[in-house]
Amino acid sequence: MSRSAPNAPAPGTSVWERKKLQAMREIQRTALDLFDEHGFRSITVEQVAAASQVSPSSIYRYFGTKEALILWDEYDPKLIELLSQNSDSVVTPQQFVEEIRESVPALIRELATDEERIRRRMRYVAGEPDVRDGLARETRQLEQVLRQVVGARLGLDPADLQIRLLSAMLAWGFDAALDYWVQSDFDLPLAEALSYAIEALTRSAEAVLGFPAPRRTKN
Amino acid sequence: MSRSAPNAPAPGTSVWERKKLQAMREIQRTALDLFDEHGFRSITVEQVAAASQVSPSSIYRYFGTKEALILWDEYDPKLIELLSQNSDSVVTPQQFVEEIRESVPALIRELATDEERIRRRMRYVAGEPDVRDGLARETRQLEQVLRQVVGARLGLDPADLQIRLLSAMLAWGFDAALDYWVQSDFDLPLAEALSYAIEALTRSAEAVLGFPAPRRTKN
Repeated sequence: MSRSAPNAPAPGTSVWERKKLQAMREIQRTALDLFDEHGFRSITVEQVAAASQVSPSSIYRYFGTKEALILWDEYDPKLIELLSQNSDSVVTPQQFVEEIRESVPALIRELATDEERIRRRMRYVAGEPDVRDGLARETRQLEQVLRQVVGARLGLDPADLQIRLLSAMLAWGFDAALDYWVQSDFDLPLAEALSYAIEALTRSAEAVLGFPAPRRTKN
Repeated sequence: MSRSAPNAPAPGTSVWERKKLQAMREIQRTALDLFDEHGFRSITVEQVAAASQVSPSSIYRYFGTKEALILWDEYDPKLIELLSQNSDSVVTPQQFVEEIRESVPALIRELATDEERIRRRMRYVAGEPDVRDGLARETRQLEQVLRQVVGARLGLDPADLQIRLLSAMLAWGFDAALDYWVQSDFDLPLAEALSYAIEALTRSAEAVLGFPAPRRTKN
């Protein structure tokens, strides 16, 4: 269903996974160097491949699209891992919210150590419509994954109205916070913008989770 | 900035507006008859124009796109009007939320009287990717309008992180609720699905409005 299926093994768990991650990091760095120097539109995937000493088909296999050379983030799966930890045990909404509040600060600290690289990538979201569209596609995928993960943790159908509303709010609220950060030319430190966004979204999640959707009238 | 500028006159306020509204209703009904009988993709805008006895350019002028023949909803501007009432006076978050809770039920009752036509249109959202994409474009526009309207009511910058996060949550949460209703084959009465969605979104808005965003470190 998506690049980040809830039960996929965490990246870096096998030698092969670690090598792939390392290769993707190097290709992304090479691509950003070329884009920064010559412009995103002037550089082809073939040129990125040549400079990275891999085949263009490897780049498409690893990243999928040219935009993903910028958008790919090794931290992305960690947010999903964090939400789906112990996903075989159903928890109450209160427990779920507490778990998030406990585990998010470490993730934010880890992201903040990489702020320069994240800013360098995110500048293209402001300037390149294809990259912005790519981010919107990723947000739609995140919304889909959240439905599955949050539904499973809470023992609810991913198609439930409450879960659908909540997943949309979380995914697009996060997208808006990221877009704010880019459009404001990074006026807040990343950790501060993210801490605010995640706490605001957690409070909203609490509000929605305390308010179950009406039951279906059929079936 | 958008089809529904906050201070635009309400539809139907002038003879010309009323005539335009009436013409759009008739064209939409004709288009739905043709789409239902022959399929959305088989029917061209030219055929809708011929059956409606107007020119194709009138249809593009009124609706913009073929998808909008289905998506156009005369009730859409009313939600924005409701949020922007007395928009020259700044209110507190509490007052704003109270106003919404007071005025939404009448809007939902009005919409519910038209449930059959709304279902007939929304079926195409499930079946036609172009129509679903058109609805996503409208949701993006709604998000933009909400930033302006909610920012103005609360005396905050539409680009503020708090307002951006809130507007995204409201617009995409509403979109998810509508999509739920369609995908579940209308298993809840429209009034019930909408009442739930708007109350859940209002509770989330209260949570976010009670939590102002950090101040910018520059300027």
